[in-house]
Amino acid sequence: MNLYEKRLSNIYDWMAREGIALVMFEDTEGRRDKTIRWLTGQPGDALFFLSLERKCMLVPWDINLANAYATADIIRSYGEYNRVPRKAILGAAKKFNTPPGSKIEIPPSTSYPAFLGYVGDLNDYDIICRERCAVSKAQKFRAVKDEEEIKIYRKAADITNLLINLLEKNVRSGKIKTEADAALLIEVEARRRGCEGTGFETLAAGPERSYGIHAFPGYTRAAFAGQGLSILDFGLRLAGYTTDVTLTFARDPSAPQEKLLSLTEKAYTLALGMVRNGTAARDIAAAVDGHFAKSKKAMPHALGHGIGLEEHEYPSLGNRADNTWTLEPGMVFTLEPGLYDSVYGGCRLENDILMTDAGPEVLTEARIIRL
Amino acid sequence: MNLYEKRLSNIYDWMAREGIALVMFEDTEGRRDKTIRWLTGQPGDALFFLSLERKCMLVPWDINLANAYATADIIRSYGEYNRVPRKAILGAAKKFNTPPGSKIEIPPSTSYPAFLGYVGDLNDYDIICRERCAVSKAQKFRAVKDEEEIKIYRKAADITNLLINLLEKNVRSGKIKTEADAALLIEVEARRRGCEGTGFETLAAGPERSYGIHAFPGYTRAAFAGQGLSILDFGLRLAGYTTDVTLTFARDPSAPQEKLLSLTEKAYTLALGMVRNGTAARDIAAAVDGHFAKSKKAMPHALGHGIGLEEHEYPSLGNRADNTWTLEPGMVFTLEPGLYDSVYGGCRLENDILMTDAGPEVLTEARIIRL
Repeated sequence: MNLYEKRLSNIYDWMAREGIALVMFEDTEGRRDKTIRWLTGQPGDALFFLSLERKCMLVPWDINLANAYATADIIRSYGEYNRVPRKAILGAAKKFNTPPGSKIEIPPSTSYPAFLGYVGDLNDYDIICRERCAVSKAQKFRAVKDEEEIKIYRKAADITNLLINLLEKNVRSGKIKTEADAALLIEVEARRRGCEGTGFETLAAGPERSYGIHAFPGYTRAAFAGQGLSILDFGLRLAGYTTDVTLTFARDPSAPQEKLLSLTEKAYTLALGMVRNGTAARDIAAAVDGHFAKSKKAMPHALGHGIGLEEHEYPSLGNRADNTWTLEPGMVFTLEPGLYDSVYGGCRLENDILMTDAGPEVLTEARIIRL
Repeated sequence: MNLYEKRLSNIYDWMAREGIALVMFEDTEGRRDKTIRWLTGQPGDALFFLSLERKCMLVPWDINLANAYATADIIRSYGEYNRVPRKAILGAAKKFNTPPGSKIEIPPSTSYPAFLGYVGDLNDYDIICRERCAVSKAQKFRAVKDEEEIKIYRKAADITNLLINLLEKNVRSGKIKTEADAALLIEVEARRRGCEGTGFETLAAGPERSYGIHAFPGYTRAAFAGQGLSILDFGLRLAGYTTDVTLTFARDPSAPQEKLLSLTEKAYTLALGMVRNGTAARDIAAAVDGHFAKSKKAMPHALGHGIGLEEHEYPSLGNRADNTWTLEPGMVFTLEPGLYDSVYGGCRLENDILMTDAGPEVLTEARIIRL
């Protein structure tokens, strides 16, 4: 069984247990879901159907791209269905002889108005749309990386670490002067070293703009790494999988800026010390929130998140009541404590952690760099 | 009345006519809607509430960013509501004294499972989620650009045209050798000329990869503009608004490649000749599909789309039965006929058109460049 067959097999098993005759996955503008890439290799813009008879059909927007990248029992262009999802569902039901009255599950991202449309149009079938579904099941599988994925992550982390060192060197030497210098170096080096590109828009924010959690715009021609705090948040995408790290560069920090830095470093150490197999992810996030609260500070975002084919995956490392994730071997996620001040600027320290049987392995070497 | 007040006023009027007490807009990961930027200046990641009493409240993820960019009667951090949308809705209803039993409209992108959650949690109110709504109303307003937006578009088009000329020059001189050379030149020049950046990931596909409608990955270190057909699709984002153009570079095209080029150029001329105020957009798209069909070719995507704060806006220029858009002054949209062959490669010609009282004005100067 190859990788895709193994992954599909788990979903087919789940379908049999749930009695679902046909499942639809969707990766389209506004409803992205990289599960289709995980199950077929198709990089994007497609519908994907799985049948109870353990056969699958890919319906890509771009048939040429699918022929170059994807594996599936049947591949049919979206154009054959006039690029109308409802027609593609009926097409799949016909191919797989899905009996009338059986359950067809559509993605949980389906909007309420669209759901009403499907139910009206596909009245021969029992249309199901729910949170606990094939998509959420796949997300749970995807949260635990398999050997092949871990191999990719080790390689992606190595390249990321090379770049971290190069970025530090070039900032120190004065070769990187602007936000754009830093961001474009990453674009060039990522591709030079075999990556698909960056995993998301690089955020390079000099001292004037580092107050933003996610700088807007992502990077400009403004000075980088001058007096104060500068943030550089980037990821490299290798064979689909993105890393996600954040460096903070600090030059002659004032006392309040030094306070932000040391609180963030302490938060990171505290969090990493709590990372163990079996630990509830929320407990770690809550401990960090508590640590900041003691200094009357608040972190305006979650402590971390899983990474993979998407930049934000499971497990969640947020301090919300609905976060029930527990850490286990194979998970790859970020720890990224940060503080942001509209006057003094911001700092964040973010690394990628792989859970192994022996505990956490810090894959990346991002750090707070004092210039 | 300033620009934002004027835009808000139109939505408030609509709310009064519809008897909606509170409307929510959402611009978050997976549910992007730049209407919030259009109404407040907030660049992203926020909820936004409008009340029947013509007051509005912005709930940004990043309060520092909102304070720097946004205008609203009330601004409250999403953190105050634990980053839970339901709590933010209740918070807005409380601020605006929305009487129990009144209608609260949530965005049409709300998933079916989330909709059920809202209805259950907010049972003091009549929760409405539908396609014909405040969001679609705003999209209709946004499809017709106002004077300020048209000024931005003229400037963005000027910069885009400068870059088109520079790209042609550097390809001809051999300075641009790879896909990455082309893409990174755009990143650098965009920012040098005052743009926020690119409007979307640049797609630069050399002859080996131009068969893809949207090349995957976006650009690599592969050769660009060698023998055959190369596609370069990019946009510049100025003050939020993106242009969107595609050049095709043809070097020593074979007879079948020349056929793709001439059919595409003819399609473009045919389409542009039909662009008139009052014309149904679908008729133009249907004519182009018919033109290609006569040569037994098919274009696997729509003829064009509106552009603005998002790369795909209204009007639609697709040949689908549900496309009821009619062209009118103030609209800015692309015309982008293209053909893609898994053996010979692809070509596309895409320009941005502004409708004026006198008819179409072609803002950009993209072309098929024969090397």
